[in-house]
Amino acid sequence: MPAPLTITAFDTYDLRFPTSEHLDGSDAMNPDPDYSAAYVVLHTNADGLRGFGMTFTIGRGNELCVQAIISIASLLVDQPLEALMRRPVDLYRRLTADSQLRWVGPEKGVIHLAAAAVLNAVWDLWARLRGQPLWRLVCGMTPEEFVASVDFRYLADALTPAQALELLRAQVAGREARVERLLEAGYPSYTTSAGWLGYSDDALREKCRDLKARGWSHFKIKVGRDLGDDLRRSGVLRREMGPDARMMIDANQVWDVPQAIEWIGHLARFDPWFVEEPTHPDDVLGHAAIARAIAPLRVATGEMCHNRIMFKQFMQAGAMQVCQLDSCRLGGMSEVLAVLLLAARFGVPVCPHAGGVGLCEYVQHLSMIDFVCVSGTLEGRVAEYSDHLHEHLHDPVVMERGCYMPPRAPGYGVRFTDAALGRFEHPAAGG
Amino acid sequence: MPAPLTITAFDTYDLRFPTSEHLDGSDAMNPDPDYSAAYVVLHTNADGLRGFGMTFTIGRGNELCVQAIISIASLLVDQPLEALMRRPVDLYRRLTADSQLRWVGPEKGVIHLAAAAVLNAVWDLWARLRGQPLWRLVCGMTPEEFVASVDFRYLADALTPAQALELLRAQVAGREARVERLLEAGYPSYTTSAGWLGYSDDALREKCRDLKARGWSHFKIKVGRDLGDDLRRSGVLRREMGPDARMMIDANQVWDVPQAIEWIGHLARFDPWFVEEPTHPDDVLGHAAIARAIAPLRVATGEMCHNRIMFKQFMQAGAMQVCQLDSCRLGGMSEVLAVLLLAARFGVPVCPHAGGVGLCEYVQHLSMIDFVCVSGTLEGRVAEYSDHLHEHLHDPVVMERGCYMPPRAPGYGVRFTDAALGRFEHPAAGG
Repeated sequence: MPAPLTITAFDTYDLRFPTSEHLDGSDAMNPDPDYSAAYVVLHTNADGLRGFGMTFTIGRGNELCVQAIISIASLLVDQPLEALMRRPVDLYRRLTADSQLRWVGPEKGVIHLAAAAVLNAVWDLWARLRGQPLWRLVCGMTPEEFVASVDFRYLADALTPAQALELLRAQVAGREARVERLLEAGYPSYTTSAGWLGYSDDALREKCRDLKARGWSHFKIKVGRDLGDDLRRSGVLRREMGPDARMMIDANQVWDVPQAIEWIGHLARFDPWFVEEPTHPDDVLGHAAIARAIAPLRVATGEMCHNRIMFKQFMQAGAMQVCQLDSCRLGGMSEVLAVLLLAARFGVPVCPHAGGVGLCEYVQHLSMIDFVCVSGTLEGRVAEYSDHLHEHLHDPVVMERGCYMPPRAPGYGVRFTDAALGRFEHPAAGG
Repeated sequence: MPAPLTITAFDTYDLRFPTSEHLDGSDAMNPDPDYSAAYVVLHTNADGLRGFGMTFTIGRGNELCVQAIISIASLLVDQPLEALMRRPVDLYRRLTADSQLRWVGPEKGVIHLAAAAVLNAVWDLWARLRGQPLWRLVCGMTPEEFVASVDFRYLADALTPAQALELLRAQVAGREARVERLLEAGYPSYTTSAGWLGYSDDALREKCRDLKARGWSHFKIKVGRDLGDDLRRSGVLRREMGPDARMMIDANQVWDVPQAIEWIGHLARFDPWFVEEPTHPDDVLGHAAIARAIAPLRVATGEMCHNRIMFKQFMQAGAMQVCQLDSCRLGGMSEVLAVLLLAARFGVPVCPHAGGVGLCEYVQHLSMIDFVCVSGTLEGRVAEYSDHLHEHLHDPVVMERGCYMPPRAPGYGVRFTDAALGRFEHPAAGG
């Protein structure tokens, strides 16, 4: 009998890309991001088989995530993979509920971002071992296997395993046809590549034309620093796009609740498809008040919504009409799947947060799982897309006509190239 | 003209006390805590004048807080103290809203715990410079100065600076009499020293007798691991205490919402004065549902409530009948004062979380500020107290008849002894 496949060691990397130099990614809350990845590589006793995971940050603080990854990934060394993945929810608990580490969360901030990197690396490794892209692997699970991957703790007042099973079983019959549809036409995206706050009007116009020509019909613009600027730039974008394309606005948390309601009132004339992050990401009741005040305009949020308990409340309170979950903010697949199920139960469309670095490569898998297994529909759903930094990934996203084409390479998609590791490692942290 | 008082450098220490050896501090969620402090000492250009601050953790993860303290405290080096404290709210923003670091929070988890340590050290330094204990210094502020110390961002839908001013002005007349009362009789406390889950029934009985003899009339017991044990131990405690003493129960977040309601139903016969942390600390709506179901029993929570935006919602939703704010979880005095004001506005009594190490030394100041300046009353208010580890502080709390006697030494109270620094520094981290 051969030795079981075992995680033998891991490496970490503090990768920082100097995006602040060109104001790519600039918005009202984050004027100068340096897109960064706290990156982990899991080694095994099988020749050449490794698992790759990362969490995304915007620069300073990335070193804290790397440090936390070391604390968490250490729990995996010498563990056999099949045992870890027998009940993925147990793995989730083990990495997110260490009896002492939990105090500096729980399930939030640095340690949860780090847990995401590590858990994503384990799922990546598992998919590589099976020779499948992760979305295919999950879409091949029975509803019972799917439910055994989910952490339902603290969700009992909104979603039970039995309800989840029922929901998943109802989608089994159509799975195959939806996989075919994805392979043929891809999953629709929207793009923020035109609308960064640091871009001039001319740059905005030019980017918009380029993206339209490449097939996009949903455009997002950053707002919230100056109302006059917002009105002018929204006008520029709406004129370039034409009346049929969909425009979204994103305030990146800069407003208090009454100010949000007032400011959005001024921008309503541009007919935004949704309004993103109007106030602090922890403010469920604030978002609910804004949603009531601006209806039928819809509130989108989620990129900083840090765990399934927060998503549960956003949905219970009617505070989130579009669910923008993040593949690094949530604690890996066990928590992401919980949020997909919650969204289906509450009838909220999932449009994952992406951009940054590596996020597009991740979230394409999540949207495809949502479509094939959970929601069963593309209606009102687009995954975020941004043009930057894909060249540093080993298996970058493939876009066609504004759609994510299904990944075919095994794994979860965030293996960096050796060139990127050599060039962008931050000097202060260890590799 | 002499050089202005300037912060010139800082040291950090990763201090861990091996409390897990005796199961002091054990509860249903935290079976084996090693009470720890991520500790910072600010140096100045004035001979002998230093500022001391810490954040509290329960062991693993303390190293992450130390690392984050280094990132945040670096922002203070070469800064003159008077300028930093001219508008304390600006200092709060500068240390909690760094445009890149904010991403790995925001205002939560490791970076917020670290910001608390640093901000508390600055307030400590300021009080030492003025030669006053911090509570006296804050109680000497005009309502206008008090309001200028508070961060009101994201609170506009619940509390404005104008409302806060009105509230503070109404308490000015009685301030002096309340200070006198504190100096004479102290601030009442309750104690968890008897009720740790790891203690035997005999140990529970013995601790209870001892504490009663020393003047306490409020006792808290840990529950939530096993219902049979809870019923038996609650009975032991209630019999020892007698019917007039107040018993509280603390589940440390172990229940889902429906389970909490059922379990508390069984324990209601012991007439608990409040029920603490029935479910996940992020679950505002879950706590609200529990509070509705168990009324007139009251829900207490707050030790893991990570910022003023969460406290705002707990109060708006009727989810918190007792506010157990924490001096390390919140981002220093600017955020603590915001929560004291919110509590007064919503009529919620503040009973701060303490125990651990250093927390008692901190929170006595906060309860005294609440009494003198904000709520103006002791009605329904007791600050938590626990017997452990005070010997390692330079100015440990003084308890008389179960009351905190007002601190008289300058500062905020968490300077560790040189002996403690020598003995309990964790080998992995630097001092």
